[in-house]
Amino acid sequence: MTALAAGIAMLAGLGVGIGIGIATAKAAESVGRQPEAYGRILPLFFIGAALAEAVAIYSFVIAILLVLKV
Amino acid sequence: MTALAAGIAMLAGLGVGIGIGIATAKAAESVGRQPEAYGRILPLFFIGAALAEAVAIYSFVIAILLVLKV
Amino acid sequence: MTALAAGIAMLAGLGVGIGIGIATAKAAESVGRQPEAYGRILPLFFIGAALAEAVAIYSFVIAILLVLKV
Amino acid sequence: MTALAAGIAMLAGLGVGIGIGIATAKAAESVGRQPEAYGRILPLFFIGAALAEAVAIYSFVIAILLVLKV
Amino acid sequence: MTALAAGIAMLAGLGVGIGIGIATAKAAESVGRQPEAYGRILPLFFIGAALAEAVAIYSFVIAILLVLKV
Repeated sequence: MTALAAGIAMLAGLGVGIGIGIATAKAAESVGRQPEAYGRILPLFFIGAALAEAVAIYSFVIAILLVLKV
Repeated sequence: MTALAAGIAMLAGLGVGIGIGIATAKAAESVGRQPEAYGRILPLFFIGAALAEAVAIYSFVIAILLVLKV
Repeated sequence: MTALAAGIAMLAGLGVGIGIGIATAKAAESVGRQPEAYGRILPLFFIGAALAEAVAIYSFVIAILLVLKV
Repeated sequence: MTALAAGIAMLAGLGVGIGIGIATAKAAESVGRQPEAYGRILPLFFIGAALAEAVAIYSFVIAILLVLKV
Repeated sequence: MTALAAGIAMLAGLGVGIGIGIATAKAAESVGRQPEAYGRILPLFFIGAALAEAVAIYSFVIAILLVLKV
């Protein structure tokens, strides 16, 4: 049951993958349109992508903890 | 059963990942269009991303509490 | 069973995460288009984000209460 | 049960696949419109795609750990 | 159960298929509009498609490992 829980926890990555993709897509589009805004879009994109990635890492930590107990 | 609960709790991260991605996408797009509005968009984006991230942390806390009891 | 209930309760965060993301996205977009409307968009965004966040906190409180009884 | 868990963990790749696809699509479109912005779009796209790919690798690691215990 | 798990793991390919499709579609569209940008769009598209394809291969590896144990 703990194994199943680890698998389910990783499903959060489904949303994180889509989210980072959307963020990257729009950031790339914006840099393409306004290359001079690159210095401002990049840190904003970094913060957003890092916060989303953190969510996947939370799930990874929980899954690792559960797997080590299987 | 507590393990399974921890896994299910992390699923909230699925929505948080998508949400932060959408927020980052539009914030980056807006900064690209109106670079002079950067000083106003950034704090707004920070508040939104932090509130969404908090939701993932709530799930993480519940999952940790459950895992420690497995 | 109470543990499972706590996990399921946190699933509300899935919708809250998406919701806050959409709200932040459109608020950032609107400030970018009409920077002079910032003073009116910010409180509106605050109220919306706070109300959505409250939903996640309700789930968190219920989950904590359930976990302490496991 | 550990086998089933490994299978479910890989489902995170569903979102990662869509996310990388969206990011690639918009990056390609932007390069097509503003070829001179290529030097700025490429690193941004790399960071986003790498962060999304990392999410799939987290799931892969969990699945491998679970499979080795089947 | 391991057989079922192998089947579920391959579902990640559902998202990868959609993602590569979106990437290919936009890349093709962009080359059609700006044929001179072909040399820059092609490597970008290759990287994105390869990263998405890798996600499907992760699932394939897990499924193979599970099938060999059935």
